[in-house]
Amino acid sequence: MEERFLISILLDIYGELLTNKQKNIMNFYFNEDLSLSEISELNNTSRQATYDIIKRCQKLLLDYDSKLGLLEKEQRISQIKKDIHIKLEELRKDIDINKKIDIIEDIKLIISNI
Amino acid sequence: MEERFLISILLDIYGELLTNKQKNIMNFYFNEDLSLSEISELNNTSRQATYDIIKRCQKLLLDYDSKLGLLEKEQRISQIKKDIHIKLEELRKDIDINKKIDIIEDIKLIISNI
Repeated sequence: MEERFLISILLDIYGELLTNKQKNIMNFYFNEDLSLSEISELNNTSRQATYDIIKRCQKLLLDYDSKLGLLEKEQRISQIKKDIHIKLEELRKDIDINKKIDIIEDIKLIISNI
Repeated sequence: MEERFLISILLDIYGELLTNKQKNIMNFYFNEDLSLSEISELNNTSRQATYDIIKRCQKLLLDYDSKLGLLEKEQRISQIKKDIHIKLEELRKDIDINKKIDIIEDIKLIISNI
């Protein structure tokens, strides 16, 4: 995953753990695509200070994810939802009872991975 | 939920965000049921210092959950898993095609809440 995109997703997941100031700066930089200079002007601070905050927050977000692993969990659940949908479409078809029971058991197995 | 039980669950979810020392003390107190005096002895520290760490960590865990809401999310997913299992048992039965499609649509709706 491209780093900029990764940080933007982690910001969605863990943003609430940052302070409001940190969250705003990260949001300006990663979601609204403002430059360091533009953000510095908005915050009445230096370009270097803005850069330091962004770097520190990037590290914080990566650190939270290495500890809680919510990104991987969200990706896994998203895949599980797709897998269940595929199985449900199979169930829709006119199938015999044994095939039906196999698919039901498959879905149970898929759910057990949530 | 009883507070002691709540903190023990939050410790499972957010424990990695604590330091090792904090995690150990919380684990001794909430999961292994050691007394403040016993924990203080193990850590070569005062009873008051142990108490302060426990209180601070309790606050931290509650604060993490108020921001990330993972406990409620886990409870919701657990309920969703149960609901899908119930629907799958209905599907197992010898039902007509319309009933089958209704149940499949019900499961899709349930999954959309994950």
